[in-house]
Amino acid sequence: MRLLLFGTALAAFAAPALADDGVPLSPGEIVASARAEDWVVIPPEDLLVLDLTADADGKPRRVVIQLIPPPFSQGWVENIRTLAKARWYDGTSVNRVQDNYVVQWGDADGEDPAKAKALPKGLQRFTEREYTQVFRETYPLDWIMVEPDHSFFTEKCLYAGAEDENGKFDEEICIEIENWPPASVYSLGFNFAHNSREIWPVHCYGMVGVGRNLSPDTGTGAELYTVIGHAPRHLDRNIALVGRVIEGIEHLSSLPRGTGPLGFYETAVERVPIDSVRLGNEAVGLPAYEYLSTETETFARYVDARANRQDEFFIRPAGGADICNVPVPVRRKPSL
Amino acid sequence: MRLLLFGTALAAFAAPALADDGVPLSPGEIVASARAEDWVVIPPEDLLVLDLTADADGKPRRVVIQLIPPPFSQGWVENIRTLAKARWYDGTSVNRVQDNYVVQWGDADGEDPAKAKALPKGLQRFTEREYTQVFRETYPLDWIMVEPDHSFFTEKCLYAGAEDENGKFDEEICIEIENWPPASVYSLGFNFAHNSREIWPVHCYGMVGVGRNLSPDTGTGAELYTVIGHAPRHLDRNIALVGRVIEGIEHLSSLPRGTGPLGFYETAVERVPIDSVRLGNEAVGLPAYEYLSTETETFARYVDARANRQDEFFIRPAGGADICNVPVPVRRKPSL
Repeated sequence: MRLLLFGTALAAFAAPALADDGVPLSPGEIVASARAEDWVVIPPEDLLVLDLTADADGKPRRVVIQLIPPPFSQGWVENIRTLAKARWYDGTSVNRVQDNYVVQWGDADGEDPAKAKALPKGLQRFTEREYTQVFRETYPLDWIMVEPDHSFFTEKCLYAGAEDENGKFDEEICIEIENWPPASVYSLGFNFAHNSREIWPVHCYGMVGVGRNLSPDTGTGAELYTVIGHAPRHLDRNIALVGRVIEGIEHLSSLPRGTGPLGFYETAVERVPIDSVRLGNEAVGLPAYEYLSTETETFARYVDARANRQDEFFIRPAGGADICNVPVPVRRKPSL
Repeated sequence: MRLLLFGTALAAFAAPALADDGVPLSPGEIVASARAEDWVVIPPEDLLVLDLTADADGKPRRVVIQLIPPPFSQGWVENIRTLAKARWYDGTSVNRVQDNYVVQWGDADGEDPAKAKALPKGLQRFTEREYTQVFRETYPLDWIMVEPDHSFFTEKCLYAGAEDENGKFDEEICIEIENWPPASVYSLGFNFAHNSREIWPVHCYGMVGVGRNLSPDTGTGAELYTVIGHAPRHLDRNIALVGRVIEGIEHLSSLPRGTGPLGFYETAVERVPIDSVRLGNEAVGLPAYEYLSTETETFARYVDARANRQDEFFIRPAGGADICNVPVPVRRKPSL
């Protein structure tokens, strides 16, 4: 077992799971083998349901977002609940699709005070301090840690000056800096990064965040985006994250790319209308969703298998995994 | 400067580049400020030009791929040259689009011996050993290293057994394992990972690889894929990488997702026909392309700025960057 795992749920964890034929199970097979009690139902009021207008063939385009649980970004999440309950998003549009980066939606005229759609009452404003939470080792209660290092700070050496004939530099400066990547944990169905003082959600594929203007603006939640490319981790701790897409991301990620600066659509006709945005408990025809509990041995085995692929296709396991390459499994709750 | 940089080109490298107003330059501004001699023209014969059939509005869909330079994956690259010169790919199709993973193209009937398109003569077969190259510190000649660590192997401690009341475990096993992530370098316009013995290209967004069946098959190059999601680094050293998309990836990444297993299109009508695939020196109407030399101080400044965003939007620089979040800049060669 080459992956560092840490947590009370993992004390008994040993050899990789094997199929009947002796081949190690794939991550998908491990998830499929989870017990019913390993899954956690997501409360409908923690879902946000985005219905784009039907596509050219009349097919519905529904995107389901799981809102991040307390205490992370709860301020912005509450604003989003207020906006959805007020049906404020209805009639807005997807305005920006930048390849390998983000899809962004909201009021296309939001920047123009003369045309902007009035916001409902009761929206709160938050400070940049709230992009992170105080890190307490006792909270959230259980962890699965991936990535190689428990230490939060480490000494780095910087080489400067001229190189001599042996390839050595005449000056070496060592400084204490934060680890890159930061330590990572899973909890409550989401993944987070932390240092010794703070904990924060990470910009993995499918994560949903709050558009904002320049600092100190932090956005209200009226303008949202989701990641559709390689994780832009440089946005971590610079923007509020509020959830992740758990179904239907293809309706956003396969949209035509915008040809304007930053991938904005250049003409109004390119924008994709949003028919409605509802909280899950107000959405019509929504099934129940559940995530694989991040506090189970099954999840630990899944993380280990993602980091050390030994199923049939693989000849050399990587020996580690980027946290954004180990998404928390989600499914529609099976009918009994 | 919090990013570890290493290389002869960097000896004089010090403070971040500043704009006239004192604001640090963004990565894009640093690239825009590069001198003409910082750019390296890509030989047309190192380009592969994939022309999909025009879209529903009659717009052309051209994808330009830069083939990886010697000595990396040259066997497969030579096969691809043979296939392109024989016009073998013409009339094949995009058959698979899996969200947050890959787009794959080639002969849709390639798995059916009765229907498969005959391959041209002269294709070579390669072994799995050739997924990596022997690592010599003297070759490629210059490096820019990102990510925090120069060491290739390190000791990891694994906690096992029961946890006591102080949160300590009664057993601690320390083992030497490979680093995760592996050390990373840039050279010759591409990025690579390495340990103390081997060096290999990495599965970043837009990288192009060779589809294969189960080991020990390594594929011929007749079936290719490109990454359209978060870097699937678990494929590193398990598949041959042969290049990267430098223009037009949106024609692949925005295609409708396949609804069959692994994102394969379920019906023939969904497949996207490929009109032609040509080497750059045989493609009609192709401009010249150039990449920002990975052996220049400009590139080092760009890497540093990507890892430590200090331009206006950012309030907290990350202090590091994933190698797949620092793509080598490419542009059409400006006309004089």
